Amino acid sequence: MPTKKTHPTTQNKQEGISKTEITNANAISNFKEKRKRNISAESLAKAIIDGDIVALSQAITLIESSNPTHTEKANQILSLCLPHANNSIRVGITGVPGVGKSTFIEALGTHIASEENKVAVLAVDPSSSISQGSILGDKTRMENLVKNKHVYIRPSAAGNSLGGVARKTRETIILCEACGFKTILVETVGVGQSETAVHSMVDFFLLLKLSGAGDELQGIKRGIIELADAIVINKADGDNLQKAKIAKTEFSRALHLYPPKANNWKPQVLLTSAIENKGIDKAWELILSYIKTSKEQDTFRSKRISQNKFWLYQTIDENLKSTFYQNSKIAKELALQIEAIEQNKTTPFAAAQYLLGLL
Amino acid sequence: MPTKKTHPTTQNKQEGISKTEITNANAISNFKEKRKRNISAESLAKAIIDGDIVALSQAITLIESSNPTHTEKANQILSLCLPHANNSIRVGITGVPGVGKSTFIEALGTHIASEENKVAVLAVDPSSSISQGSILGDKTRMENLVKNKHVYIRPSAAGNSLGGVARKTRETIILCEACGFKTILVETVGVGQSETAVHSMVDFFLLLKLSGAGDELQGIKRGIIELADAIVINKADGDNLQKAKIAKTEFSRALHLYPPKANNWKPQVLLTSAIENKGIDKAWELILSYIKTSKEQDTFRSKRISQNKFWLYQTIDENLKSTFYQNSKIAKELALQIEAIEQNKTTPFAAAQYLLGLL
Repeated sequence: MPTKKTHPTTQNKQEGISKTEITNANAISNFKEKRKRNISAESLAKAIIDGDIVALSQAITLIESSNPTHTEKANQILSLCLPHANNSIRVGITGVPGVGKSTFIEALGTHIASEENKVAVLAVDPSSSISQGSILGDKTRMENLVKNKHVYIRPSAAGNSLGGVARKTRETIILCEACGFKTILVETVGVGQSETAVHSMVDFFLLLKLSGAGDELQGIKRGIIELADAIVINKADGDNLQKAKIAKTEFSRALHLYPPKANNWKPQVLLTSAIENKGIDKAWELILSYIKTSKEQDTFRSKRISQNKFWLYQTIDENLKSTFYQNSKIAKELALQIEAIEQNKTTPFAAAQYLLGLL
Repeated sequence: MPTKKTHPTTQNKQEGISKTEITNANAISNFKEKRKRNISAESLAKAIIDGDIVALSQAITLIESSNPTHTEKANQILSLCLPHANNSIRVGITGVPGVGKSTFIEALGTHIASEENKVAVLAVDPSSSISQGSILGDKTRMENLVKNKHVYIRPSAAGNSLGGVARKTRETIILCEACGFKTILVETVGVGQSETAVHSMVDFFLLLKLSGAGDELQGIKRGIIELADAIVINKADGDNLQKAKIAKTEFSRALHLYPPKANNWKPQVLLTSAIENKGIDKAWELILSYIKTSKEQDTFRSKRISQNKFWLYQTIDENLKSTFYQNSKIAKELALQIEAIEQNKTTPFAAAQYLLGLL
């Protein structure tokens, strides 16, 4: 990618607009018509592509807004930034509160951030507007990283639904990449299905665990081990080191029971002490080696395409369902049908046919 | 449940038809109107409830048929049988071909079947119409069980979609229970998502595994271990016994890493040799103890209610999606949008909005 960015509309004309370019045909023609009235959308996009963090923040705020005017502007900015996106490594990091996620992210971010490798730190946390636990709501926990000029930190979008928050995060990733960030870290505390959501938007998914009395080995949410491309056992220092090694053996055994992933990747277990800055370099090497292998085998690109298709189908599916269930007639009848099912008066299939027949 | 069954319509009148009885209001009034023309639907239901296996088979064939007249009759029969269903234990059994599923089911069925505990053996295998591997297509593999007068064996419904096959199996379970079968075994070879489908229609889900050179420990489909309420390692005999014990330790360790299930159930690993009829009684005791505990804690009933709701929402969801994607306008535009996504010309979210806006 050239360091000097050409003006986006010039770039589009150079690429040509073929009849297969669906994009948002409406959005593009609106954009041209409103160009004089909505200079700020174009200006913002240009500024983002030129690496302007302030413009990036403003655009992300538009993405997060529920105001339709803001949403329209955000979509225009996204259209313009999209051709400049995708050139990054996206890493998801999950772990329960107390596992040392902030410290780990700070150590990792500090280790890798540079002029050539700017790092964006994002989060998916649908409860962030109400919980005390949103770690990225409190930037002082990563007080060194916040001061790092090659690092951009943004708390999770707020929202009632995971789908809404996940979408805003995905779009924020696009803007960060267009702004020149080469590594995107997306962290989640792991409430509800948020790990699955983050896993479906990153190239590499890292599960951060603790070791300890042996109890910490349990309590892993079902399915999370299988999402992980690596398990990192943190706080492997001092008195804890021995237990950490035992935990490593346990997890390695568990991972051994599963088939390898795409491109034959065998998830590994690493030990780190984020607070002592140990093992962080090994973790990053592991991520890089995964990326390298997956690019050589072209699974990197195909995985991102799959993820995009998944996002498409998921968005359609959620919309179809919410439209259906929010229909007032359905809402009323649904309760009655569920009651009939619980009383064994109708089969779920018959109830479904009845409800679908109402529309 | 009384052994002498009253006539279903008399029973309905005794229970009264309150305004909350949605059932299939249409179906019931049709039933009464067509009573003289469709005596066979009512007769079939009555015969099933009286324990007539031939009537049961005929009704299941109607369920499996795609002929709308047959489907209507099947739904009438289901309505009449539903009040007599649910009084059973439903056990799902999954395992790859070669693990000894037929032998295991034969041993288990022989062990538990009696006049007071009639056993139905069903299957979910969407590929059964084309594959050579449908084990229950070849009843000679369970040649003793076939001759057991307390056992009813039915091959999987054929079908292109798992959803369709799963529905027919669920409805077949209802009929078998109305016919007096107290234990329903539902087996699956494990193609695609069929384990998940079977898991969502049974009380207890059993994963049958082999031991051996160590390689068999791998290759478990992601997520299956977590569905299992018990893992049974078969062919634990002769030269294989030592390896089976090692496998048991490995799986026990793996299960230990997960949190317990509902009612604090900790999945166990058992050794069996179906061909030597060893360990089968222990497996059945385990299942019974699970059922007992879950009934004491009322999770048995709440689990079945959850499963029914899941079936309801899943049926609605699949119908909404197939209606959407089969729309010819959508089908055409979808391909173009996916191409635009792959070429980074539109975000999946924008593409979804565009497609949804077409309708």
